[in-house]
Amino acid sequence: MKRTEWERMKKTVEPFANLTLSEKEALRKSLREEFDRVCEKKLKLNMARGKPGKEQLDLVSDILTVLKTPEDCEIDGLDVRNYGNLSGLPAAKQLFAEILDCKPEQCFIGGSASLQLMYDLIAKAYTHGLRHSPRPWSQEPLVKWLCPAPGYDRHFGISKSFGMEMITVPMTPEGPDMDLVEELVKDPTVKGIWCVPKYSNPQGIVYSQAVIQRIAALRPAAPDFTLMWDNAYCVHEVFGEYLPFPDILALCAQAGNPDMVYEFASTSKITFPGAGISCMACSEENQAYLQGLLKFQIISYDKVNQLRHVRYLKDKAHTIQLMARHAQVLAPKFSCVLETLAREIGPLGLASWEKPKGGYFVSVNTLPGLARRTLELCTQAGVTMTAAGATYPYGKDPQDSNIRIAPSYPALEELQKAMEVFCLCLKLAALEKIA
Amino acid sequence: MKRTEWERMKKTVEPFANLTLSEKEALRKSLREEFDRVCEKKLKLNMARGKPGKEQLDLVSDILTVLKTPEDCEIDGLDVRNYGNLSGLPAAKQLFAEILDCKPEQCFIGGSASLQLMYDLIAKAYTHGLRHSPRPWSQEPLVKWLCPAPGYDRHFGISKSFGMEMITVPMTPEGPDMDLVEELVKDPTVKGIWCVPKYSNPQGIVYSQAVIQRIAALRPAAPDFTLMWDNAYCVHEVFGEYLPFPDILALCAQAGNPDMVYEFASTSKITFPGAGISCMACSEENQAYLQGLLKFQIISYDKVNQLRHVRYLKDKAHTIQLMARHAQVLAPKFSCVLETLAREIGPLGLASWEKPKGGYFVSVNTLPGLARRTLELCTQAGVTMTAAGATYPYGKDPQDSNIRIAPSYPALEELQKAMEVFCLCLKLAALEKIA
Repeated sequence: MKRTEWERMKKTVEPFANLTLSEKEALRKSLREEFDRVCEKKLKLNMARGKPGKEQLDLVSDILTVLKTPEDCEIDGLDVRNYGNLSGLPAAKQLFAEILDCKPEQCFIGGSASLQLMYDLIAKAYTHGLRHSPRPWSQEPLVKWLCPAPGYDRHFGISKSFGMEMITVPMTPEGPDMDLVEELVKDPTVKGIWCVPKYSNPQGIVYSQAVIQRIAALRPAAPDFTLMWDNAYCVHEVFGEYLPFPDILALCAQAGNPDMVYEFASTSKITFPGAGISCMACSEENQAYLQGLLKFQIISYDKVNQLRHVRYLKDKAHTIQLMARHAQVLAPKFSCVLETLAREIGPLGLASWEKPKGGYFVSVNTLPGLARRTLELCTQAGVTMTAAGATYPYGKDPQDSNIRIAPSYPALEELQKAMEVFCLCLKLAALEKIA
Repeated sequence: MKRTEWERMKKTVEPFANLTLSEKEALRKSLREEFDRVCEKKLKLNMARGKPGKEQLDLVSDILTVLKTPEDCEIDGLDVRNYGNLSGLPAAKQLFAEILDCKPEQCFIGGSASLQLMYDLIAKAYTHGLRHSPRPWSQEPLVKWLCPAPGYDRHFGISKSFGMEMITVPMTPEGPDMDLVEELVKDPTVKGIWCVPKYSNPQGIVYSQAVIQRIAALRPAAPDFTLMWDNAYCVHEVFGEYLPFPDILALCAQAGNPDMVYEFASTSKITFPGAGISCMACSEENQAYLQGLLKFQIISYDKVNQLRHVRYLKDKAHTIQLMARHAQVLAPKFSCVLETLAREIGPLGLASWEKPKGGYFVSVNTLPGLARRTLELCTQAGVTMTAAGATYPYGKDPQDSNIRIAPSYPALEELQKAMEVFCLCLKLAALEKIA
């Protein structure tokens, strides 16, 4: 960080700014002593990943026994125990189509990870090309990719693994900065964009209708520009009622871009994170093209587990009811994070944050230059968090500011402890800079 | 087929050769009438794929209920319902390591299809390169691949999908023709070979110790030559006791080729074909390299299903006991195929076949030029078989001779009918040529 930025920042930290240098040093010392006492407790708390907690897993464990007998494994004359049905169980397509408001024929049902479906789509773009690719991307001298940030580290991980040049697009409260996106897609080497449109990871932003409409109507120079629409939190409200969300496949088709979009969803945070089912939805033409490649890769993903999910989740309405029960577990945890931040950090002006209505994260922006040191201190104190910078391409947060808090995994009491440690670390990091 | 070959062939068909032309024509007519009567029955019989039958699926359906409660989902302090453990459940690695006689650290546990693990390995060779690759294969002007044939159509499908140049290597009763293989691997563009070493698909050949030793000790010019060791039938005896089989990973390591080999196995024909678990075993160095790439693709495959399999199969000894019960179902079906062939086709000398002790197929070699027509007639008569040529690269059987029979799926009574139709079609095809 440049000296001038730091000077500007210091002025905004009102409470500390009013202290004399020796008062600041005294405060730093006392916080450090508090920190040392915390370290002695050898805590082991984890706010790193969007992992459901045990209470949530127990809530859905009846799914283990919905299929008990050979007869239970039949549906529509199909024995799900045996080979066949590359694109998945028709009833599972029906379920996802209802949840995503698209057509069953547009759905491909995958295994326990939508991440794998995303990765495999990009991999096929590299090895074979997508439907409108002039050539496989492995034969392109350069592939650029748009990364709204802060964003999901595993998305950026896929881009990095394939050697894409990642271009950071700032997030606004309504979604990605569309003026910039519309400009950038004029470059034919820009091949796609990552989006988490509902309760974005990590900010919990819901893309506005206007942003969604502009995305659907993009006019990219690349004929195989790929809209990766990761609807990971499509039914994942934490506070309030289910929020309806438009069918991006239909919007893209209406805007003349039927083959531009691939939508992803999974049950990872509906049933079991380690044993759910996933879905990739896209135009029927894209399905035909991709299944022509997929048939060499797999006979089908696990259809017994697909049927388990169909029988357990039943339909969209029933799934939303289940999600309301998850929310009952999650809401107090999100409240704990938000209230602790408001109490401990708010008055000091050391950070700002969104107040998400759903999803799995609270995204905190500290004053510039504090994120890395804060997380270093958290690690020393036994609180594991997502690494600093993880929410930016190449793991490089230009402001060293964004921190993703994942409140779901710890029990409420532990979370309270972890948040107090986090706030302590943030304050100490700030005073180390100032004092 | 050349005229001279046909002349030679005709002489070997003793019974028909002793008939006069008009007698042959009368026999053809009477077989055709019999065939037409069969067609009228509108049969629907399937001997196409190595699909276990319903009796086998029922045999293992207790696996559905081995995990019933949240407590059942814990093992070694790990909750399998949640995220984590990229390379799989330690207990599942232990199970496969015991079955394959390798080390747990050498095992990566996948989802319902070992085919997917194979495809993904090849895909990564193309997008990123393997551990010893000078460059990703997508940047190689030419990739050649050795295909022992007859072989598994889905192996050849992967090679075809990636645009490899497939080189057919004849199978001997002891495995691939190793003189030829040793010669071919001197070409640095030859990047690998497909092998099904125990009860090969389709012939049921068990590679001899001498062949296995020569494979392990290959000196390929390509530094990233890849031995795809698909041990699909590692515990799949049909007749007789479990046949021990050497650990190819150790043999390759001893011969100075520790990173050359990737071994694959799955429970597709142990528990449920549509919902099993799979394994890729390779050197720990290869595991480290590949998991460095896999971590961008998947958080882990379905660990609940991995634990289900661990609890249900227990260990190697118990798995072999289960396979003996599968064999009780399969042996009468294999006997039916072999006996019908011996009775109907044997005396006419129209074909030869192996008598496999395990695996899932009986491989029939008709006299040259009869396979395609025989299968055409089978289709008309309502008996579905693997397409002619499927067991050869590019689907082209140079002799138009090899037919793969899969006896596992139909009930015994239906199989008997299907085999009678098959033999009728083969005889008719031969007489159409002669008469």
